[in-house]
Amino acid sequence: MSHEDIPGYTYGEESVPDSPIDREDFDLLKETVMFTEEDEEHLRLAGEVLDGQIDDVLDTWYGFVADHPHLMQYFSTPGGEPIEEYLERVRARFGQWIRDTCNPPYDDDWLRYQQEIGLRHTRRKKNQTDDVNSVNHIPFRYMSAFIYPITATMRPFLENGDHDEETVEKMHDAWFKAVVLQVTLWSNPYVIAGDY
Amino acid sequence: MSHEDIPGYTYGEESVPDSPIDREDFDLLKETVMFTEEDEEHLRLAGEVLDGQIDDVLDTWYGFVADHPHLMQYFSTPGGEPIEEYLERVRARFGQWIRDTCNPPYDDDWLRYQQEIGLRHTRRKKNQTDDVNSVNHIPFRYMSAFIYPITATMRPFLENGDHDEETVEKMHDAWFKAVVLQVTLWSNPYVIAGDY
Ligand code: HEM
Ligand code: HEM
Repeated sequence: MSHEDIPGYTYGEESVPDSPIDREDFDLLKETVMFTEEDEEHLRLAGEVLDGQIDDVLDTWYGFVADHPHLMQYFSTPGGEPIEEYLERVRARFGQWIRDTCNPPYDDDWLRYQQEIGLRHTRRKKNQTDDVNSVNHIPFRYMSAFIYPITATMRPFLENGDHDEETVEKMHDAWFKAVVLQVTLWSNPYVIAGDY
Repeated sequence: MSHEDIPGYTYGEESVPDSPIDREDFDLLKETVMFTEEDEEHLRLAGEVLDGQIDDVLDTWYGFVADHPHLMQYFSTPGGEPIEEYLERVRARFGQWIRDTCNPPYDDDWLRYQQEIGLRHTRRKKNQTDDVNSVNHIPFRYMSAFIYPITATMRPFLENGDHDEETVEKMHDAWFKAVVLQVTLWSNPYVIAGDY
């Protein structure tokens, strides 16, 4: 699927807001998560291993959400009815996100889109992209908590390539750092002004 | 070192504020980080393995902070002079935190102390416990980013026990979940009211 065919995916477009983080602060943040060029290489390698498995990864994550009513409500109407079209449209963007995460280096367009993704989880922008009538905000605590499942469940898929144990470990570690880095960027719209 | 001898450690005391999270929400949060009784067992096991290595773990973490001026400033005067007494007093509480993390189940006193720890990283309470003149707030983005180093650097210490590879992996995984859980709880004072 090419970018242009993904409904609501606006990476690189004019409509995407600025990042609250400048390049220098972004570099310090990368240092803080110990993100290096070697991680970038291993993420690109992970991208090759995951290519062809994206749907299986998404099945796992969507399965986890579907198993938990306290998570599923955010893809549902305020009355609790799952919104199929919403689930499907977000799923396509989620798949593209895996590809984007595995395609560093992370440039300014990438950085700006992180702010957009963060906003889309909050009352400031949730539901707008897909024009749906769903619960209008995802509590911050679940965003942060998701770092664990989104990291841990990736491991078996990375093992499905032809790489030795050490390389799998390095790809997984790079993935872990990339997830922490992004959830950290997505937190900005949730945090009190000046405290971020 | 017994609890009573650790300056500023107020776990279980009256002065500790309430948690913004009730028991039911805490259970849902644990489900979201996939935290189970098996993790509790492995954390207790990790506590045994780490006993006697706490100082080495702290050396690693303090070394990481000391290597990065953008982190070291939060243990320094606004002029940039490291405050030795502050570093030492926090170090003792940090060591106790490792022990507490490895001593589940997490009860109400534990939950309340997480709110206190969160506050102590923010302009609402930083510097007060040790009565120091340091920079008065740690930006949220570094709190979140620290999930990676605090998780990853623990691995070699867990390998120093007599346990097989699989058990080490499970201890490390339980540690990872416990760190995500706690940083998530500590985020509360940083997040806009109603968005947490
Ligand atoms: C590590 C944490 C998370 C990751 C990596 C993640 C990833 C993503 C991605 C990539 C998108 C699409 C972004 C785009 O529009 O291009 C998205 C949207 C969405 N996510 Fe998350 N997410 C996380 C946490 C959560 C949680 C905890 C929930 C709650 C169930 C959730 C529910 C949603 C929903 C409902 C949307 C659509 C938002 C909209 O209306 O535009 N996400 N997420
Ligand atoms: C995963 C993230 C982090 C963990 C697990 C952690 C752990 C802790 C613990 C256990 C304490 C003592 C709590 C008590 O008073 O009983 C503490 C205090 C402190 N931490 Fe962190 N911390 C984290 C992030 C950071 C960051 C990013 C910095 C910035 C360099 C930092 C600097 C400090 C300082 C300066 C104090 C003393 C606060 C005060 O004045 O009371 N911490 N931390």
